[in-house]
Amino acid sequence: MKKMNMVIAQSGGPSMVINQSLVGAVLEARKSPRIGRILGARHGILGILGNDYVDLRKPSVKKLETIAKTPSSALGSCRKKPNADDCRAIFEEFRKLDVGYFFYIGGNDSADAARIVAEEAEKEGYPLVVYHIPKTIDNDLRSCDHTPGFGSAARFVASAIMGDDLDNRALGGVKIDIIMGRDAGFLTAASALARVREDDGPHLIYLPEVPFSEEKFVKDVQAAMKKYGRCVCAISEGIRGKDGVAIGAKLGSGEKDSHGNVQMSGTGALGDALARVIKEKAQIKRVRADTFGYLQRSFPGVASETDQAEAFAAGQSAVMAALKGERSKGTIAILRAKGKKYQAAFAARPIADAAKYTRSVPSEFIAKNGHDVTPAFIEYARPLVGKLPETATL
Amino acid sequence: MKKMNMVIAQSGGPSMVINQSLVGAVLEARKSPRIGRILGARHGILGILGNDYVDLRKPSVKKLETIAKTPSSALGSCRKKPNADDCRAIFEEFRKLDVGYFFYIGGNDSADAARIVAEEAEKEGYPLVVYHIPKTIDNDLRSCDHTPGFGSAARFVASAIMGDDLDNRALGGVKIDIIMGRDAGFLTAASALARVREDDGPHLIYLPEVPFSEEKFVKDVQAAMKKYGRCVCAISEGIRGKDGVAIGAKLGSGEKDSHGNVQMSGTGALGDALARVIKEKAQIKRVRADTFGYLQRSFPGVASETDQAEAFAAGQSAVMAALKGERSKGTIAILRAKGKKYQAAFAARPIADAAKYTRSVPSEFIAKNGHDVTPAFIEYARPLVGKLPETATL
Repeated sequence: MKKMNMVIAQSGGPSMVINQSLVGAVLEARKSPRIGRILGARHGILGILGNDYVDLRKPSVKKLETIAKTPSSALGSCRKKPNADDCRAIFEEFRKLDVGYFFYIGGNDSADAARIVAEEAEKEGYPLVVYHIPKTIDNDLRSCDHTPGFGSAARFVASAIMGDDLDNRALGGVKIDIIMGRDAGFLTAASALARVREDDGPHLIYLPEVPFSEEKFVKDVQAAMKKYGRCVCAISEGIRGKDGVAIGAKLGSGEKDSHGNVQMSGTGALGDALARVIKEKAQIKRVRADTFGYLQRSFPGVASETDQAEAFAAGQSAVMAALKGERSKGTIAILRAKGKKYQAAFAARPIADAAKYTRSVPSEFIAKNGHDVTPAFIEYARPLVGKLPETATL
Repeated sequence: MKKMNMVIAQSGGPSMVINQSLVGAVLEARKSPRIGRILGARHGILGILGNDYVDLRKPSVKKLETIAKTPSSALGSCRKKPNADDCRAIFEEFRKLDVGYFFYIGGNDSADAARIVAEEAEKEGYPLVVYHIPKTIDNDLRSCDHTPGFGSAARFVASAIMGDDLDNRALGGVKIDIIMGRDAGFLTAASALARVREDDGPHLIYLPEVPFSEEKFVKDVQAAMKKYGRCVCAISEGIRGKDGVAIGAKLGSGEKDSHGNVQMSGTGALGDALARVIKEKAQIKRVRADTFGYLQRSFPGVASETDQAEAFAAGQSAVMAALKGERSKGTIAILRAKGKKYQAAFAARPIADAAKYTRSVPSEFIAKNGHDVTPAFIEYARPLVGKLPETATL
């Protein structure tokens, strides 16, 4: 079989383990005699369009292992949706470089970008094997049981809420914590993993999947204050009212990326607005709000071991599937093997399965009261996150 | 010598290692035949006034060791400044309980509260040995080379900035990170420890010790964008204009505690306001702001080893000093032993040395350009924080 070169790139929001997938793919590709050059495009599709590559045969295995443990996207990222013209320019580049394999690591928008590239290649008759490698802290790919990046971000969130709940025990009042997740509430739901003791927070959890009502929120907080004498709230940045419009988006800058996503992270506006509501309507004096922000996807040294290993394996699996040649365009689905002990399985699936649309937290994971998760969610999420630091109270 | 009972309590903002000091003091007290009951007052002075105690002879050593590693104040905290009437009520309580030793763990306001109790006891002729045990993530006690709590919070901040800088490399633009520190910029300065490579952020550091000018800020950001193509800013929540008034306090709720401190943490208002300035005046599109908030003092599992050991030793030292009886009211000063290798030393000093007034970042730690720290600061802070996670870039 003819030796072909490969291009790999990263796209969308970085995570703590997206470099594991990069390194997993690169080390797997280095094993194959059918792959020639291994080129990393800087800043996703923009690097291909700008002919900006890193030679990924050069770094030592030791260096790559450190890269794998380094948070964020080592190749840089972008939020670019390619159009037909972009694709033609990409194939012109790929022809010059003799590229036969293209791997794109990212979330649903990145999967959609890869799908567009793959479909345009077919239309143009350019022979290209395209694989999407899943990544998103939001855990919202329809193709996966869970996504690489989620376990580590969830570990950060659960740890943060655990510490913050202890802090709230000391000084009391209401604490509001805003957690990432534009459309899906998985990451906010993971805050529940912080609970060890019966009175541990988070006492209230609000997901984008349940329409948010200010009146219910005020009543819930008052009830929690009565029960616990304090209240820690884990609230998704994506909560929306009955009209379906995200409350944070209404307060934000209105800035949009080329996939049409409105900016929600990188501002404390939602937390501050909700704190004002509680101060004024629930008449509680000490109300504080924190927005966990970009630390959720970038904090070094706290990644979940399971998540790291699976992200690496997802990268490997994509290269293996591409070389196997069953399909010319695919995505790697991470599934959960049946059985008592948690184990992940990896499978190549049609790329469209991961592209564009997202999945939400299913109803069996949402408590009936509308402000908590179910034990089924805890069972689902615990093995992805791993053991949290042990704490004690007096 | 007569056996007397002791009361210990925690006050002010919690930290990741304030329980180390509590446990250090309790385990030291358990060794002495001269100490009878060991009572932990819940929520500082409020627990004494409300007769709300925990028997600290009861928990096993194993349990206390877990408490020591648990962030936040296990006894609860308060921000109460006692007046003469409060003190009389305290001594009435202490008389009933036969209390001869009182230990108060906290920052400058807590030291001042302990000083007031000690001085009122003298006036009343109540025999009481009072020791303040230092704690503050702000590192602003005049009595100490550095304070327990600072090294761990600094470790969180440096780690967070390290991850956030990698995130900013991936997607570019300007990132503004707001860091705790009402009056002193030590914690913000510690962000500089995140730098490994020459182009690593933070690219700009603003401390409360240098009057903040919006025009300089805009120019600094534009210059950094030109040099690095991106910009990460570490900004103290306490930055103030030429008028000396904190900019964050002007934007905040105006809420004050009984020591007269205005609320600054627990809101994203300062970061959001500064992001707007850059968007509008520097004409940069992608500007994000995060406020690290309470995670800086409460995140579990990231405490500095040196800080943990020193906080424990500070608690031990206070009990040893109190039993030695050199002074009836003191504070434990943490000093730095001279010599090439870093080593801390502990000494009993007059309680007034730690009380009320704070210290600022000294001028030899502030770069002449007004937006950075000096190598002398790095040398000062590095051993307190310890080794940070290793990262690599492509």
